[in-house]
Amino acid sequence: MTLRRPYALFLGDARDRLAAKTAIGIWAWRRDWCLAQVRLGNCAAELDLPSMTVEEAAAAGARTLIVGVANAGGTISPAWLPTLRRALACGLDIASGLHHRLTDQPALVADAQQFGRQLIDVRQPQQAFAVGTGAPRMGRRLLTVGTDCSVGKMYAALAIEREMRARGLAADFRATGQTGIFIAGDGVCVDAVIADFMSGAIEWLTPANAADHWDVIEGQGSLFHPSFAGVSLGLLHGAQAHALVMCHEPTRDHMRGLPGWPLPDVGRCIAANEEWARLTNPAARCIAVAVNTSGLSTGDRHRQLAGLEAALGLPCVDPLIDGAARIVDALP
Amino acid sequence: MTLRRPYALFLGDARDRLAAKTAIGIWAWRRDWCLAQVRLGNCAAELDLPSMTVEEAAAAGARTLIVGVANAGGTISPAWLPTLRRALACGLDIASGLHHRLTDQPALVADAQQFGRQLIDVRQPQQAFAVGTGAPRMGRRLLTVGTDCSVGKMYAALAIEREMRARGLAADFRATGQTGIFIAGDGVCVDAVIADFMSGAIEWLTPANAADHWDVIEGQGSLFHPSFAGVSLGLLHGAQAHALVMCHEPTRDHMRGLPGWPLPDVGRCIAANEEWARLTNPAARCIAVAVNTSGLSTGDRHRQLAGLEAALGLPCVDPLIDGAARIVDALP
Repeated sequence: MTLRRPYALFLGDARDRLAAKTAIGIWAWRRDWCLAQVRLGNCAAELDLPSMTVEEAAAAGARTLIVGVANAGGTISPAWLPTLRRALACGLDIASGLHHRLTDQPALVADAQQFGRQLIDVRQPQQAFAVGTGAPRMGRRLLTVGTDCSVGKMYAALAIEREMRARGLAADFRATGQTGIFIAGDGVCVDAVIADFMSGAIEWLTPANAADHWDVIEGQGSLFHPSFAGVSLGLLHGAQAHALVMCHEPTRDHMRGLPGWPLPDVGRCIAANEEWARLTNPAARCIAVAVNTSGLSTGDRHRQLAGLEAALGLPCVDPLIDGAARIVDALP
Repeated sequence: MTLRRPYALFLGDARDRLAAKTAIGIWAWRRDWCLAQVRLGNCAAELDLPSMTVEEAAAAGARTLIVGVANAGGTISPAWLPTLRRALACGLDIASGLHHRLTDQPALVADAQQFGRQLIDVRQPQQAFAVGTGAPRMGRRLLTVGTDCSVGKMYAALAIEREMRARGLAADFRATGQTGIFIAGDGVCVDAVIADFMSGAIEWLTPANAADHWDVIEGQGSLFHPSFAGVSLGLLHGAQAHALVMCHEPTRDHMRGLPGWPLPDVGRCIAANEEWARLTNPAARCIAVAVNTSGLSTGDRHRQLAGLEAALGLPCVDPLIDGAARIVDALP
């Protein structure tokens, strides 16, 4: 998979900012790679980027149009097709992380062939993986884990990578979800891999490396989410992480998508992740908690972080507000 | 997926009995469905079934030729193709649980089309599954779990189904692997499902049922196997089992495929499975241990079972020797 840069971010007909969260994530972490935003007339999301047509973006040097918008079904909306087809005609590749595939759209496939362009569905594994072996490998690895889905595991990992690099450490963010793949330029959507090969895919994604090199791996789901815990466990075993960072969103009153289903206690969730991580790395330990406090007032934020820190005996920070310095200070 | 019966079992050029273990499993548990064995000249495996050519099997009433042999790579051997093509020509469907697909063999696809026959790759999911919800559902469920892969989880589940039915209980074996699917006539290879949908596939396989009906679900892998634990956890969460039966092979000195990797303590493995099963069924508990004693002398067998039973405080039996009565006696 080669995602050619710079990107033009397609926001389509996003009805709010949440619908454009893939585009927002790319823009937040790889602004240098983003040349333009492409919006339809009824688009309710906007980024701090030049607005262009696909023709203008191509003329300005963009190489790939990233579908940065999602609708409820994860489908390629018919309303987007004219713009996507023009993008191919003027020389752009198209990349998407949606559940439904660009390559299942006959018009796009025909145009891509005619104009010699790529359609890249980053959710689809690009190769066959081997079964995981659990064999120890060189290099250091950190994995973000969570009390729930969508609590900030990708943002925490990216903040940690940034802080590590600022200190001159050798560190690479390793993407396991679609937005992360656009940000890293490659990666594996672990939840789209055939079940047998989950841990093997993560072993492939984070191979042996220099003894002092850190892979900072984006976690997925939660061991306590009944829909996705198997994915989280396969990822945990494949990662052979030395350091875990627990990610948590304190205002949530039920597991994502499951009204009435309580969140696990943070301490219990840490203990469970440490216990299971040790199957493939006996040295694994949780070094910090990354708390997404975007839903809290400043006062509540301080109380929440101080309370968690006292209860857990670990650095508890919001890496997007406080930075990741205290997390990186705690590395083993 | 419709597997038409009776079956003719294709043993091909199996170089030993282990290579024919799929055929042996079908023959052991569904002898009434097996009309013939089809062996090539150099076949080293043999069942207590009439040996026939595919033409003879078709004339005798067979409807499906089951590929009951495996080679190391899980491929369709070129040496089998002439026989498989003749099977289609004389009116048989072909079904396979191998990793490589019948439907990737152009000659077989062409013949199946010409003769109006089915090629059924049971490892390939036959439909899209939904994400699991963890929502409670009616009916009773028992799941066999294990200290390792290939310790007898399918055989234990089938022995339990047989004992339940002998007592007049409403019970159905639910298959999660290829041999089990041939034995049940349907099912889902959970390790071949896209990772996101593991627990959802099991919820689909074992839907709500009468309050006193038992689904007896074939387990896969082990929570302690670093290659496959994620599959085992997705299965455990989807099953919402009331009863777990731990399966164990006491002569094994390392996890299957991983020399040097120790097996978990049986008691610890029971505790972990109970703890994680309770995320989706708080009543889950391990009711018995099914011990595969095929590798032990009679004296060692008795010592092993008595020792485990004293240590764990649970019925410990080899269901293939002792029957499953004590397991079924322990049902909640």
